[in-house]
Amino acid sequence: MENRKDQIIEAALKRFAHFGFHKTTMNEIADDLRITKANLYYYYPDKSTLILDVVCKIATDLQADEKKVIDQYANNFMETMFKLIELRGDFTRKYYIFHINENLDWIKGIDIYEVMEDFYQRDVALLKCLYEKAMTHEGLVLDNVDEVARAMVEIQKGVSFIHTISDMITGIPNDANVDKIIESQKRAVKLIFEARLAK
Amino acid sequence: MENRKDQIIEAALKRFAHFGFHKTTMNEIADDLRITKANLYYYYPDKSTLILDVVCKIATDLQADEKKVIDQYANNFMETMFKLIELRGDFTRKYYIFHINENLDWIKGIDIYEVMEDFYQRDVALLKCLYEKAMTHEGLVLDNVDEVARAMVEIQKGVSFIHTISDMITGIPNDANVDKIIESQKRAVKLIFEARLAK
Repeated sequence: MENRKDQIIEAALKRFAHFGFHKTTMNEIADDLRITKANLYYYYPDKSTLILDVVCKIATDLQADEKKVIDQYANNFMETMFKLIELRGDFTRKYYIFHINENLDWIKGIDIYEVMEDFYQRDVALLKCLYEKAMTHEGLVLDNVDEVARAMVEIQKGVSFIHTISDMITGIPNDANVDKIIESQKRAVKLIFEARLAK
Repeated sequence: MENRKDQIIEAALKRFAHFGFHKTTMNEIADDLRITKANLYYYYPDKSTLILDVVCKIATDLQADEKKVIDQYANNFMETMFKLIELRGDFTRKYYIFHINENLDWIKGIDIYEVMEDFYQRDVALLKCLYEKAMTHEGLVLDNVDEVARAMVEIQKGVSFIHTISDMITGIPNDANVDKIIESQKRAVKLIFEARLAK
């Protein structure tokens, strides 16, 4: 039997992805699972903790998919980087509602920083792994692979914020921005790596 | 005699820089200038328009200072880029209070997008000017100087957002972040240009 916590996370994820964190109640999640509210609260005493586990699940799934892409690397560094960017774009499109029209209170109440730090370290490790492969097999020239991986995670996050911020200001939910984010990130990758690859 | 509008902008800037947009009243600005409120409202019917002109003044001053740095370029591309980053950091430190604990209503009410677009184009033009100099005099290799300038403006803005966003979430005004912003931007510049400069 599947772990009960996993079932709860799965049900919550479905609700959240459709209606957002704010509009989903613990009652609805319990109803979806045909369990009592008391039973749900036994596993998750508050919604914030559940949200945190849902966010973790999404990120873990994404990073597992990214690892698969990197494992399939075959002397096509630029293409692999672009695939990773597209993959992250797909996740953002799928879970876009998480970002919009949400108040940020749930983020303040929980231990999100440790989780975020952990994701960051895993993002850096994944990119390093790809860069090392490309250095060995494709003549990618990097002085300091660790620093480049860190800078790339920052740059990719940063260029995606540009478009997210303008959303926050206009207040218009607009998942067409994902395309702009992907475009910016690809431009940054080309700028940084194209000249460094041995032809 | 100095233009009356310039005097108003100057007085407003002083107040805003100390107390923020929100806590400054039109009355206080009129008092500082020893003019009547009616006289002030003759030039600026609402605070939003005045804020916009103040923001324009700051950006224009910054870009004038940046132009000076670029005019002084003397075969020291990396150093010049770093100087530009430091200069922008100084401005951010000086006007940091503008970013914190402000509600964003004034941004929604006014024609900020056109102004921002104009700043963006001027930022790109300034960087292009520096890159072209470095290509001629220092062997900087760039395929498409226009695209690189655009990508750099995005990257620099983006990596600065990373640190600003975490401020927004914690809610802690913290101008120590300017150092982190500068550090990120320098890391990005090194990553992108160091290998492209002829030794």
